[in-house]
Amino acid sequence: MFTDMLSRFVEQCPGAVGAVLMGFDGIAVDQYYLPMEQIDLGMVAVEYANVLKEIRNAAEILKTGELREVSIVSASYQVLIRTLGDEYFIGLTLKREGNAGKGRYLLLRDAPEIQAALA
Amino acid sequence: MFTDMLSRFVEQCPGAVGAVLMGFDGIAVDQYYLPMEQIDLGMVAVEYANVLKEIRNAAEILKTGELREVSIVSASYQVLIRTLGDEYFIGLTLKREGNAGKGRYLLLRDAPEIQAALA
Repeated sequence: MFTDMLSRFVEQCPGAVGAVLMGFDGIAVDQYYLPMEQIDLGMVAVEYANVLKEIRNAAEILKTGELREVSIVSASYQVLIRTLGDEYFIGLTLKREGNAGKGRYLLLRDAPEIQAALA
Repeated sequence: MFTDMLSRFVEQCPGAVGAVLMGFDGIAVDQYYLPMEQIDLGMVAVEYANVLKEIRNAAEILKTGELREVSIVSASYQVLIRTLGDEYFIGLTLKREGNAGKGRYLLLRDAPEIQAALA
């Protein structure tokens, strides 16, 4: 069920290579990735979760309110993250030249549907 | 010198409340903040650096290439971060409704000038 939702992100967002639905504990609920060579997907999952936990701690300490979105741009990839309540988040990975604006829009649009399906 | 550059970001970006030039070790080179009540600026600095270190580690492990930009959106604030080589970064904090696109543009535009001044 979630795989269909995740594949939509990858298919509708130019330059997207994969999407994952994951708990803040680092355990993936579901994922959908295009065949790739350069990224170890198991590692990606664990690293996503570590980064998110650090950012969530920071947001709590700084009282900036609940964490909503994170985007990370590196030389070869972009990662867009959208939180779904307290327990889950979606991570969308794009190539550097991918359309991050479209990715953010799709995550925002479909987050309520996925969150409802998780409940 | 850096304070002038940092104040430009805050003045030219609608909704920006502060900018900091900082080492990855968490020590601020310079900062410029509008008078605010809700955020403890010393804490912000340390938390920025912790988050960045975690993201940099992740980027290294995942081989996604050198970290360039990070943006974090929470319920009340947005934080835009741009790396300046291996040792420093700029953090720009905006209110939730601030113009993040303009902020990203300004950071991209002025990063080379600040990096040159640091060398």
